[in-house]
Amino acid sequence: MTAPILLATSQPPDEEAAWREALARAMPDERLVTAADAFDRSAVTIAIVANPPPGALAGLPALAWVHSLWAGVERLLQDATLPPVPVVRLVDPTLARAMAETVAAAVLALHRDLPVYAAQQRRREWRQHPARAAGQRPVAILGMGEMGRASAALLRGLGFPVRGWSRSGAAMPGVAMHAGRDGLAAALDGAAFLVNLLPLTTETRGILDADAFARLAPDAGVINFGRGAHLVEADLWQALDAGQVGHAVLDVFTQEPPPPEHPAWTRPDVTVLPHVAAPTDEASAAAVVAAAVAAFRSTGQVPAGVDRTRGY
Amino acid sequence: MTAPILLATSQPPDEEAAWREALARAMPDERLVTAADAFDRSAVTIAIVANPPPGALAGLPALAWVHSLWAGVERLLQDATLPPVPVVRLVDPTLARAMAETVAAAVLALHRDLPVYAAQQRRREWRQHPARAAGQRPVAILGMGEMGRASAALLRGLGFPVRGWSRSGAAMPGVAMHAGRDGLAAALDGAAFLVNLLPLTTETRGILDADAFARLAPDAGVINFGRGAHLVEADLWQALDAGQVGHAVLDVFTQEPPPPEHPAWTRPDVTVLPHVAAPTDEASAAAVVAAAVAAFRSTGQVPAGVDRTRGY
Ligand SMILES: NC(=O)c1ccc[n+]([C@@H]2O[C@H](COP(=O)([O-])OP(=O)(O)OC[C@H]3O[C@@H](n4cnc5c(N)ncnc54)[C@H](OP(=O)(O)O)[C@@H]3O)[C@@H](O)[C@H]2O)c1
Ligand SMILES: NC(=O)c1ccc[n+]([C@@H]2O[C@H](COP(=O)([O-])OP(=O)(O)OC[C@H]3O[C@@H](n4cnc5c(N)ncnc54)[C@H](OP(=O)(O)O)[C@@H]3O)[C@@H](O)[C@H]2O)c1
Repeated sequence: MTAPILLATSQPPDEEAAWREALARAMPDERLVTAADAFDRSAVTIAIVANPPPGALAGLPALAWVHSLWAGVERLLQDATLPPVPVVRLVDPTLARAMAETVAAAVLALHRDLPVYAAQQRRREWRQHPARAAGQRPVAILGMGEMGRASAALLRGLGFPVRGWSRSGAAMPGVAMHAGRDGLAAALDGAAFLVNLLPLTTETRGILDADAFARLAPDAGVINFGRGAHLVEADLWQALDAGQVGHAVLDVFTQEPPPPEHPAWTRPDVTVLPHVAAPTDEASAAAVVAAAVAAFRSTGQVPAGVDRTRGY
Repeated sequence: MTAPILLATSQPPDEEAAWREALARAMPDERLVTAADAFDRSAVTIAIVANPPPGALAGLPALAWVHSLWAGVERLLQDATLPPVPVVRLVDPTLARAMAETVAAAVLALHRDLPVYAAQQRRREWRQHPARAAGQRPVAILGMGEMGRASAALLRGLGFPVRGWSRSGAAMPGVAMHAGRDGLAAALDGAAFLVNLLPLTTETRGILDADAFARLAPDAGVINFGRGAHLVEADLWQALDAGQVGHAVLDVFTQEPPPPEHPAWTRPDVTVLPHVAAPTDEASAAAVVAAAVAAFRSTGQVPAGVDRTRGY
């Protein structure tokens, strides 16, 4: 009998059940348990988590590593009861691909003024607006990891000039890469679209602010698919009111769902998406996790975790 | 003094002026005239037209050919006063590129349920819908000419399986091509998106009908960027009501703008665009026309016109 793997989530019961089923299908030889099951806590070496209840991972003396079912682990890393074992985040090409499709959808929708025409339709107004070619409208992508690179590739294919910004500034063919605070200015200057795909860390919190918006081309599109706390909301409302930003697409909020009085719900120049930019595909995520588990079982090697000081 | 070139449009004065300016810039050595100018009608060998007033081309005994500033010439060919000279339609790569960007924007918007989320936003509703990968959602493109091919290329780059339908069925790498009435069924069967980019002819009128919609995948997206008369509107409303079609994006109508009582304005499952899918770029269109004029001046050869019996 292999040691049980603990699945710890605070998802609604049907979502946790879906995860359990997908994981069981991906690793039929493993024994998967949840807090509700009877099992020997001292035998658990692996935990698989999706927003685990605080303390869920305490009292597991043999715990060797934790696999997150999410790509972003900022919340997990802030849990003071998280044992000091490696935390592996989900790196799923299916997820990056889904993100890239949503980024392309949002950029093209703004590029082609779809929200403007939707507002006109409600007024039964038939009016053309001048259009430019994608090749004339640079897109700045903040965060060039799994999500950023996949998105950059699709946007390049559509003909947009793409600029990327990351910590390292690691090269990507066909993309103008920038790094550091000076690099940020260069990435943003005159960009027609700003796409945020950063992880939330102390360094990136509040990075979408008045300074950033002021660098963009007039009437720019802002797309926040990272985390809500990347955005200084008051600065965005001001930039929208001033026409510095023409439209924003927000998929993430500091509180989800945003409260009914949140301005994003009713502003005609803001599109609210309910955190669906990169919807997790349980089957492919489970396959990625199963592969990591299988490698650990056969080699005893713990997979590479996130850098806790860096925060991602 | 070269023979004058007649510019004949029924565009609003500012639009005609913009055309005249763009054309004058593209061929500074030519003499461009309009009906309002004094010129020798018997000396005119070339006319450049954008929706010319009926009869505008009559009484030009030396007329050798006509260049349309539009890509679609179905209206021009129906003008009984049109002299029997070759009619050259606009083939502008810039236009095809613009069309492809709008096709990609519309397909991705429906692929990512943006109209559904926009409706939810108006109700302040936060609810995720299942998403599929582009690779699982075939797009059927009717009409694989300049517009269809450019669109197919972008959609392939985004990862959608693409099927094309044309008269000849001429091959395009990476696209499953079909031809003829049987081919139409094969192109449409189970497609998640239908994109119409056909020219309007007696054969293609009313092609977007109940039979076509019934072949698509449930909840399919229908995008009509060809001409209004390609669509049997009553069939579309029924298919939408039945859920056979999930959403339609209509850029063209039999009457433009559609009258205020037209159902498209108010249906939540229809997006109305004001004929902007491929907005003409005056500068590039003028360059294309100027190249044809220059070739005629130097060789005396009339450029290839559309096939009047075929209708495109
Ligand atoms: N809305 C959604 O549905 C959704 C879904 C999944 C993920 N996300 C968000 O997307 C984020 C990114 O995911 P990922 O998988 O692409 O992460 P990743 O592979 O770790 O990439 C992170 C990128 O951000 C860069 N970065 C981090 N800190 C930086 C700093 N201080 N300055 C400049 N660049 C910095 C990194 O630079 P280096 O390349 O130099 O390391 C890297 O390019 C997640 O953390 C999450 O917030 C959202
Ligand atoms: N909404 C807008 O803003 C906008 C702007 C520009 C154009 N348009 C529309 O787009 C249309 C297409 O333009 P284009 O430049 O791509 O035209 P095109 O190059 O002449 O291509 C027409 C395509 O339709 C196919 N076709 C024609 N009759 C057919 C039939 N009976 N059965 C099957 N296939 C048939 C042709 O087949 P073959 O390849 O075998 O000849 C060809 O592939 C225009 O006519 C216009 O209606 C709309």
